[in-house]
Amino acid sequence: MATFIASGGRVWRKFVKTFPVGSNLALKRSPTSALANGRLFSTSSENVLVSKDEKSGIATVRMNNPPVNSLNTALLLSLRSCFEELEKDKSCRALILTSNKPKVFCAGLDILELYQKSPDYVGQFWEKVQDMWLSLYGSRLVTMAAINGHSPAGGCLLSLACDYRIMAEGNFVIGLNETQLDLVAPFWLRQMMVDAIGYRQAEMALMVGALYPSNKALQLGLVDKLVPIEDVQTVAEEEAKNWLKIPDQARAITKMASRKPLLDELRKRKQEDIQTFRDETTRESVQLSIQQYLEKLKAKSK
Amino acid sequence: MATFIASGGRVWRKFVKTFPVGSNLALKRSPTSALANGRLFSTSSENVLVSKDEKSGIATVRMNNPPVNSLNTALLLSLRSCFEELEKDKSCRALILTSNKPKVFCAGLDILELYQKSPDYVGQFWEKVQDMWLSLYGSRLVTMAAINGHSPAGGCLLSLACDYRIMAEGNFVIGLNETQLDLVAPFWLRQMMVDAIGYRQAEMALMVGALYPSNKALQLGLVDKLVPIEDVQTVAEEEAKNWLKIPDQARAITKMASRKPLLDELRKRKQEDIQTFRDETTRESVQLSIQQYLEKLKAKSK
Amino acid sequence: MATFIASGGRVWRKFVKTFPVGSNLALKRSPTSALANGRLFSTSSENVLVSKDEKSGIATVRMNNPPVNSLNTALLLSLRSCFEELEKDKSCRALILTSNKPKVFCAGLDILELYQKSPDYVGQFWEKVQDMWLSLYGSRLVTMAAINGHSPAGGCLLSLACDYRIMAEGNFVIGLNETQLDLVAPFWLRQMMVDAIGYRQAEMALMVGALYPSNKALQLGLVDKLVPIEDVQTVAEEEAKNWLKIPDQARAITKMASRKPLLDELRKRKQEDIQTFRDETTRESVQLSIQQYLEKLKAKSK
Repeated sequence: MATFIASGGRVWRKFVKTFPVGSNLALKRSPTSALANGRLFSTSSENVLVSKDEKSGIATVRMNNPPVNSLNTALLLSLRSCFEELEKDKSCRALILTSNKPKVFCAGLDILELYQKSPDYVGQFWEKVQDMWLSLYGSRLVTMAAINGHSPAGGCLLSLACDYRIMAEGNFVIGLNETQLDLVAPFWLRQMMVDAIGYRQAEMALMVGALYPSNKALQLGLVDKLVPIEDVQTVAEEEAKNWLKIPDQARAITKMASRKPLLDELRKRKQEDIQTFRDETTRESVQLSIQQYLEKLKAKSK
Repeated sequence: MATFIASGGRVWRKFVKTFPVGSNLALKRSPTSALANGRLFSTSSENVLVSKDEKSGIATVRMNNPPVNSLNTALLLSLRSCFEELEKDKSCRALILTSNKPKVFCAGLDILELYQKSPDYVGQFWEKVQDMWLSLYGSRLVTMAAINGHSPAGGCLLSLACDYRIMAEGNFVIGLNETQLDLVAPFWLRQMMVDAIGYRQAEMALMVGALYPSNKALQLGLVDKLVPIEDVQTVAEEEAKNWLKIPDQARAITKMASRKPLLDELRKRKQEDIQTFRDETTRESVQLSIQQYLEKLKAKSK
Repeated sequence: MATFIASGGRVWRKFVKTFPVGSNLALKRSPTSALANGRLFSTSSENVLVSKDEKSGIATVRMNNPPVNSLNTALLLSLRSCFEELEKDKSCRALILTSNKPKVFCAGLDILELYQKSPDYVGQFWEKVQDMWLSLYGSRLVTMAAINGHSPAGGCLLSLACDYRIMAEGNFVIGLNETQLDLVAPFWLRQMMVDAIGYRQAEMALMVGALYPSNKALQLGLVDKLVPIEDVQTVAEEEAKNWLKIPDQARAITKMASRKPLLDELRKRKQEDIQTFRDETTRESVQLSIQQYLEKLKAKSK
């Protein structure tokens, strides 16, 4: 079992300063509101950067939450808002999700959002994860994960929610390592993993919190293609163009027929899922695990 | 993504002349009614040819609907009638489904049955597809697909409904390419695909309407064995004989335990499934896709 | 399809003499009652031998029902009792299930328990199989199958109920060969097989009653690792230690989230499942199959 330390404590602290937890700062600056203009290039001060090729209808969504694209409240809100705007945009047919910081696609949930917070806060945070996922997994668009770096936990969740996964070759890992932090993946994330790599491999991966190097991930079917890191975006665009040769409507109906049961299941069990996550995450042993993890990060960054 | 043009426009027209859509001509001449005699060799004027080896109890069902075994009303009725007769025939233990025209196993649904027809007509046609499938997928017999040629869409459906799939090596394709024609595979066909190659590969295959060359189909598990085209029938017979070493009753109960949920699901949702297909297929954009497809065939045949 | 003759007729008879069917002899001598003492080494006269490493919390459970570890009433009761005691033992974190007689892990259900018995007897026997399975499959412990020999039918069931499967290289087979004896695997065993190797391979394996040599089993994913027979135990211990690096609680909750649906399904349908097995097994043709099988064993042992 590989292990993966998401980031150093120093950068975590810096990150918290830039985007105060719970503020709407990122949302207000969200580039997606300008999408109506058709062409859009965001500035580097925003946590999600969107650009769209008008000819092909392919939008690229770059996560830009330094240093490791941790999924905090602000980024979750920006991503959801962005996915929903693109969904409504008639001229948009495909979406490429990638990182503006090559070498890390997304380090997963921002663990500070789960540490020493009230159960209510944790519950509200979890709902933002659910809503972001619902908007991506249920998208009518062709969705491509251009995984240009590490992709543990929430990074793997984002990848699994897409239609196709292209990952960078090399020393990058992907997987659901929740149990390593004493956390439990929710049923809908577990189901996506089962769907991707089969029940047996998924059960084992989830129990041991496995992180796979990219070549093993390819072998398991957790990703669909490996390319050099500098080609991830180009290959994602080429692949999207291939998919767009298929009539949109039949493709989207086919996708929804496949995904509707899981989407409906979460919509139906949303409150139960929030409560489970809240109760799990705020129990003492988990808080202790998080504390130890943060102390390890702090020690490393000195 | 490979593409496959089912046939030339000229032969389509000829085919329509031979078996008028909606007539019972083929059924009346159906060879299956003579099955009580035990030995049966049909003439070439019939759309399904059945022969049975009395010693082994293995029947071979040859689709004979030139030029490409398109599943029109007449062929669907003949196949269903044939499957049901063999089911009742106590001396029959196994069924090999193959094409009398090597190089094309079955080109799928006859698209003329879906073009410029009333919703009612399309709905009734779809019910014939359902009923044919119910009789094959739920058969107590050992069922072998001897895929001696191309097998797109409905051809793949027939193959998936069998217990085992032997395909000809070489430049032959198999897959569910419905979306390429703006069509959507029904839930029970999608489920058979998921069952055969796993959720992930099936979701992708259905979204992009993939047609796989036989060696890729073997690798995915969409077919079980590849042999030279001239050996497909012989190997199917050998395999059937191997399966017949297992006691019939336990094998049939085991098969039914596995398949009953999907059979029951379609029986329960039959009308809903008809309505979905009817509404999907008669929408304007689909009719336009079919028209363009037919014009392309016509142009090719000149 | 490979075939596997579980044992010679002579040893079967001897076996019956040693452990009278239906007696509680084995249970009374069960070593598991001494587990409270923390350290435990059983004598060779018992049908289950348990030892526990106090430092690691890993218990090894050795089936010891000569000659082939057939699952008769006594062994089923001992196994269940043993699993339940270890479950309650706070110092126990992992369980390795293996055979005290290398070359045969477990030959499956004791067929004499099904032959010429009353429907009630067969039903009660089946309930013991169910209960043993519920206690192993639903265990909070890390469970490792150390498959040091042949593992047909019930042996495969035991292996599938564990979290991880390490098998001996060489001429050993594993699989669900029920149909070869005219028997039908129950829904929960079928589901474990589908979960392990996928629907398509499982449907086929169950229909034809396939027994796979260990290298084919590895390829299918029916087992996870192959090692020389003398290393099976050591490697199982190493693997268990790796798994124990993961926090127990998150791992156990994750496992249960994955397995609860099937556990609940059997708990709900227990009586229906008993009745199905009882009716299936006591029908005339099955009794005849068993009789012929036993006669074949007798002839062989002369």
